[in-house]
Amino acid sequence: MSEHTTSAASKVLQSVRWADEALDLLDQRLLPEQTVYLKLKTPEDVWEAIRELKVRGAPAIGIAAAYGVVLGTAGFAGTAEELAAEVRRHAEYLATSRPTAVNLFWALDRMKARAQALAESGVPTEEAIAALLDEAKRIQAEDEETNRRIGEHALTLFQDGMGVLTHCNAGGLATSKYGTALAPFYLALEQGIHLKVFADETRPVLQGARLTAFELQQAGVDVTLITDNMAGHVMSKGWVQAVIVGTDRVAANGDVANKIGTYGVAVLAKAHNIPFYVACPMSTIDLSTPTGADIPIEERHPDEVTQGFGRRTAPEGVAVYNPAFDVTPSDLVTAIITEKGIVRAPYDTGLRKLFEN
Amino acid sequence: MSEHTTSAASKVLQSVRWADEALDLLDQRLLPEQTVYLKLKTPEDVWEAIRELKVRGAPAIGIAAAYGVVLGTAGFAGTAEELAAEVRRHAEYLATSRPTAVNLFWALDRMKARAQALAESGVPTEEAIAALLDEAKRIQAEDEETNRRIGEHALTLFQDGMGVLTHCNAGGLATSKYGTALAPFYLALEQGIHLKVFADETRPVLQGARLTAFELQQAGVDVTLITDNMAGHVMSKGWVQAVIVGTDRVAANGDVANKIGTYGVAVLAKAHNIPFYVACPMSTIDLSTPTGADIPIEERHPDEVTQGFGRRTAPEGVAVYNPAFDVTPSDLVTAIITEKGIVRAPYDTGLRKLFEN
Repeated sequence: MSEHTTSAASKVLQSVRWADEALDLLDQRLLPEQTVYLKLKTPEDVWEAIRELKVRGAPAIGIAAAYGVVLGTAGFAGTAEELAAEVRRHAEYLATSRPTAVNLFWALDRMKARAQALAESGVPTEEAIAALLDEAKRIQAEDEETNRRIGEHALTLFQDGMGVLTHCNAGGLATSKYGTALAPFYLALEQGIHLKVFADETRPVLQGARLTAFELQQAGVDVTLITDNMAGHVMSKGWVQAVIVGTDRVAANGDVANKIGTYGVAVLAKAHNIPFYVACPMSTIDLSTPTGADIPIEERHPDEVTQGFGRRTAPEGVAVYNPAFDVTPSDLVTAIITEKGIVRAPYDTGLRKLFEN
Repeated sequence: MSEHTTSAASKVLQSVRWADEALDLLDQRLLPEQTVYLKLKTPEDVWEAIRELKVRGAPAIGIAAAYGVVLGTAGFAGTAEELAAEVRRHAEYLATSRPTAVNLFWALDRMKARAQALAESGVPTEEAIAALLDEAKRIQAEDEETNRRIGEHALTLFQDGMGVLTHCNAGGLATSKYGTALAPFYLALEQGIHLKVFADETRPVLQGARLTAFELQQAGVDVTLITDNMAGHVMSKGWVQAVIVGTDRVAANGDVANKIGTYGVAVLAKAHNIPFYVACPMSTIDLSTPTGADIPIEERHPDEVTQGFGRRTAPEGVAVYNPAFDVTPSDLVTAIITEKGIVRAPYDTGLRKLFEN
C-alpha cells in the first residue's frame, strides 16, 4: 500500500492497541471532547468495556474480545490442553457482552480454534500463550488489510462530486484502521476524488456526531453533520447520490442488521432512487443465520434515550423503547461490499459463492 | 362540551395566558425538568420568546404574537387611527421572529385588521385598546374550540387498540388547549378508546421527548418515547396503524411544512401502507402559497445540533446543516383534518372548498 493511501486514515485515533501486556482501549464514550485510553488487564475489564460501549463497532469489538481472551491467559500454569479449556471459558464469557454483532463470536471462535490446535500440536503452555497473543494481533492486522480492500472496492462505486450519506460509525474508530463504510472516503481523499459526506448523528448514542463527524473532520474529509430525521430532507434536495453503512451481521439471505435507524435510511434511499450500499468484512457475514428475523436485536437502557446529553430530556418514568439495531431486508440493499469484492442480489447464492473462493 | 372531554386535556400546562396586563408564558425550553412562567411586557419580549423557542407550536406562536401586539399598545395616547398604525408597526416587527409558521402572520393580520376597523368606527383610543385585547383573547378562545373540533374529526379515523405515531409536539403546549395532532388522544382517553402512542423525540430540540411525551404522560395517555430513527423499525414491526402530525403551513396544493423529520416519517408511512394524517386549524392553510416549494424553510443555529443539551456532542467547528422544517408533498398525505372536517386528495379543490363554506 502506498504512502498516500495511508496518510488520511492514519490521522484517526487507534481505538484498540496492545501494549505492555495490557489492552489500551480508547474510551469512545468520551469522544470528541476527551481522548482517554483505558488500560484493560482482565477479560472482565474487556467484557465491561464492550457492554458499556467504551469500545464499539463490530470489527473493533471482535479485536478487543480476542485480546480479552489473551488477558485471561496471563500467568496460566496448566497444560496446553487445560489452556484451551480456559480459553473456551473466557470466550464463552466474553460472548455474553453483546448479542448482535457476529464479529464478536467470529473472533472468539477463532481464538478457541487456535488454542485447540495448539493443544493438539503439543507445544509447551508458554509457547501456546505467546501464539494466542500472535493470533489476536493477526486478527487486528488482517482487519486493517481487509478494510483497505473494502475501501478500494467501494470507491469504484463513487465518482468525484458525489454526495454520500452514512449512518452511525463504521470508520477507523470502529475497526483496526480505515473503517468499512468510511474506508472509501479516506481513499478518495488521497486520490483527489471529492466526496461530500453527510453524517447522521445517530441517536441515541450519537456515534455519527461524536465519532464519524470527528474522525472524518480530523482527516480532512468534507463532512456535514445532520440529525437523523434530516436524512429524508437532504435526499429530497438531490444532495445524496449514494448511502453507505457498515453492519453488525449479514444473514445468509442478505438481510443486514446495523445500528438503529439504518432501515429507515434504506427505505428513504429507495424512495429517492439512491443506491444503498453495505460495507463489511467477510467475518460479518453469518451464513448460519438464515434471515434477518433470526438475528437477535439488543435492547438497551432507556437512559440512553432520556438522558443521553448530560441532562434529562424526557419526563421521569416515561415508557421508552430502545432497540440498538434494526434489520434492513436484502431487497433494499443495492450491494454488499467485502474485501473479496462486491455482491449484488440474489444474495443467497452470491454470499455463499464468496466463501467458496 | 362535557366535563369528560375536558378533563384529560386540562391536565396539560397552559403555555400562554394573559394576566395582570402582561403575557405569562411557559418557557417550553425548560420542560420537562422545570416549570417556569415568564412575564412578558413588551413586543420585544414576545419577539425574543418566539425566536428563542420559549414559545413554539404554530397556534401558540400566533396567540403569543397577538398578545405581543396588545403589549405594544400599553399607555398609547394617540388617536385610534394612530393606534392602528402603531399596531401595524408592531405586527410587522413580530412577523420577523420566525418565517415558516403561517399562523403567526394570520394572527398578526387579524390584529391589524381589527385595529383598522376600530379606527374606522371612530371609537375612543382607550376603547380600541381594550377591544384589541379582547381580539387576542378571542383568538386564544377560538383556538381551543377549533382544536376540540379537530380532535373529534380526527378521532373518527382511529379505532380502539390502534398504535399511532406522532412527530414533534402538536399538543396542548403548542396551542391554546387540546393541541391539533394530539387532540384525538385526549378525546380518546375520555371516551375509553385505547390508543398506543409512539412519540418521536424530534431532534434537534426534542419537542417530542420534552413536550409530547410529557404532556401525554401527565394526562394519562399510553405513550412510548422513541428516537426519530426508530420510527421505521417500529412500523416494520406492525405496531403503527396511523401517523398524525401538526403543521406550520399547508400550501394550496396540500403540501405540508412541518418540523424537520416529518417528511421522512411520511415516506416511511407510505412504504408500510400506514395512513399519514395532518391536523391543523384553518388558519394554518395558506391558499396564497401555491406549493411547498414556496414555503420559506427556517435554518437555525448549528449549536442546536452540536450542543443542544448541556454538553457538546460533536467536534468543534464541524459543518452542520440545521433546517427547522421540511415539506411533505401532498401525495404522501392521506388526509388533512381541520375544524371544518376532513379533506382528502385532490387537495387544491378540497382546501379551497373549505374556505367557501
